[in-house]
Amino acid sequence: MNPVERVRVRTIEGGRDADRDDDVAVEEPLAIQIRREDGASGFAFVTTMRTPGNDAELAAGLLFAEGVIEGPGDVLRLAVPDPSGGKPESNVVVATLRRAAVERAEKLHRASVMGSACGVCGKTTIDNLIPAERPAIADRLRVDPEILLALPRRLKERQSIFASTGGLHAAGLFTFAGELEEVREDIGRHNATDKLVGAFLLRGRVPISAGILVVSGRAGFEIVQKAVSAGIPLVASVSAPSSLAVALADAGGVTLVGFLRERRFNVYSHRHRVSASPGDSS
Amino acid sequence: MNPVERVRVRTIEGGRDADRDDDVAVEEPLAIQIRREDGASGFAFVTTMRTPGNDAELAAGLLFAEGVIEGPGDVLRLAVPDPSGGKPESNVVVATLRRAAVERAEKLHRASVMGSACGVCGKTTIDNLIPAERPAIADRLRVDPEILLALPRRLKERQSIFASTGGLHAAGLFTFAGELEEVREDIGRHNATDKLVGAFLLRGRVPISAGILVVSGRAGFEIVQKAVSAGIPLVASVSAPSSLAVALADAGGVTLVGFLRERRFNVYSHRHRVSASPGDSS
Repeated sequence: MNPVERVRVRTIEGGRDADRDDDVAVEEPLAIQIRREDGASGFAFVTTMRTPGNDAELAAGLLFAEGVIEGPGDVLRLAVPDPSGGKPESNVVVATLRRAAVERAEKLHRASVMGSACGVCGKTTIDNLIPAERPAIADRLRVDPEILLALPRRLKERQSIFASTGGLHAAGLFTFAGELEEVREDIGRHNATDKLVGAFLLRGRVPISAGILVVSGRAGFEIVQKAVSAGIPLVASVSAPSSLAVALADAGGVTLVGFLRERRFNVYSHRHRVSASPGDSS
Repeated sequence: MNPVERVRVRTIEGGRDADRDDDVAVEEPLAIQIRREDGASGFAFVTTMRTPGNDAELAAGLLFAEGVIEGPGDVLRLAVPDPSGGKPESNVVVATLRRAAVERAEKLHRASVMGSACGVCGKTTIDNLIPAERPAIADRLRVDPEILLALPRRLKERQSIFASTGGLHAAGLFTFAGELEEVREDIGRHNATDKLVGAFLLRGRVPISAGILVVSGRAGFEIVQKAVSAGIPLVASVSAPSSLAVALADAGGVTLVGFLRERRFNVYSHRHRVSASPGDSS
């Protein structure tokens, strides 16, 4: 599954007009199918557009974000029928899950069947957007502003696909000392975060209580919601947050940083985690 | 419905640490309910997160993009029960539609009920992504590269919310002479395009056969799909297109321009519409 595709483009620059080859990020559908342990029943849970790569992690992260799986123990198998690429079969992940997880998936599926898919409609209270079952958000760690300021550059250095296409969102997980642990890329910034959380989840490393999530795009409420679910104490976006992201971070105990670029940033909630005396202050 | 909300933030810039007020773009759910002419039946069609404002246009554009309505004649009423803002009731649009449109909505609704919501899953052929019923894409007009290069700045000048929040996507509709006709903003770039197309649709101005759609974000396949449905011959993005956007533009007869910023841009498909001799070449 190649995340990049070569196309022929006409480039017009400073009055010059030239033909050349250029890379674009691949965007393809991924269908996530859910199967019971006994193989008896199976159904299509959701289809999402994504950039191919880390598909099993994407499925894990998405199922976790939706509350279908609660940990790696719920996942028996994540199978990509034909990962060799280019064929429609490559765009499917079959998730074989424990009975309880399958039942949660069926319930969600039925809920959307009822036309009340909307978990948020008519309820503007923030409490409804915070997952009922969620890890406590750790409050031991502090990050130095200088360390925060360096993260976007480090994230960009590790973005392999962005370099050639200019078209991908990245989500990176850093330690509070500023070390990059993992980065995932996708044409959708939600997908990039799902892939990242999925990768940690499959290794049994959720909650991610000592991590900083840096996203390359805007911080909408889903990004904060995913952080709350994964127990991530600090979310930083290089761009603007939305009102709901701020409110959710505030209620969920997450520090939200926005406009993290060049020599500045804003802290929108739980500002005490950003402190000139870094490290473990417990 | 205020699209902007004031929050208290801590700003760290060049070593200085200060408290101040800042504006963030509002993000709230909008539920679109569909009702029959006789008022007999009604159901919740979809809920989308959006920045409040132009909600009726958003509903119209979204229902058009989904193939539920085919023109303004299908729409009998778009009612926002309580547009005075701040209350959950403000987050609902009730669309009273003609019988045929209601039936199409019910069919779509049932299809998603069946768990086969995925219109694209397993089919990577582009033909499946191009709406069966669509206007012909006009091929009369040409745009001068210099005119194209000026569009992003003109779009930005008219973005009212972006100025204060830095957080919104914009979609603008320009003439081939470079005049801005309309601009819509939203935290989601798909919503911004739906609002824009919805505005034209409600005025009976779809297909938009003489328009250039400029979007502030990446060009994913949905943006091109919406342009194809609305008959828009040229789509320009200030950022990168995806592989599927390029393929869809190519198959759908749409000129796709990417990386339109500073003094350069790329043309990915139907490049003949970009020409140093502008205007009507028919």
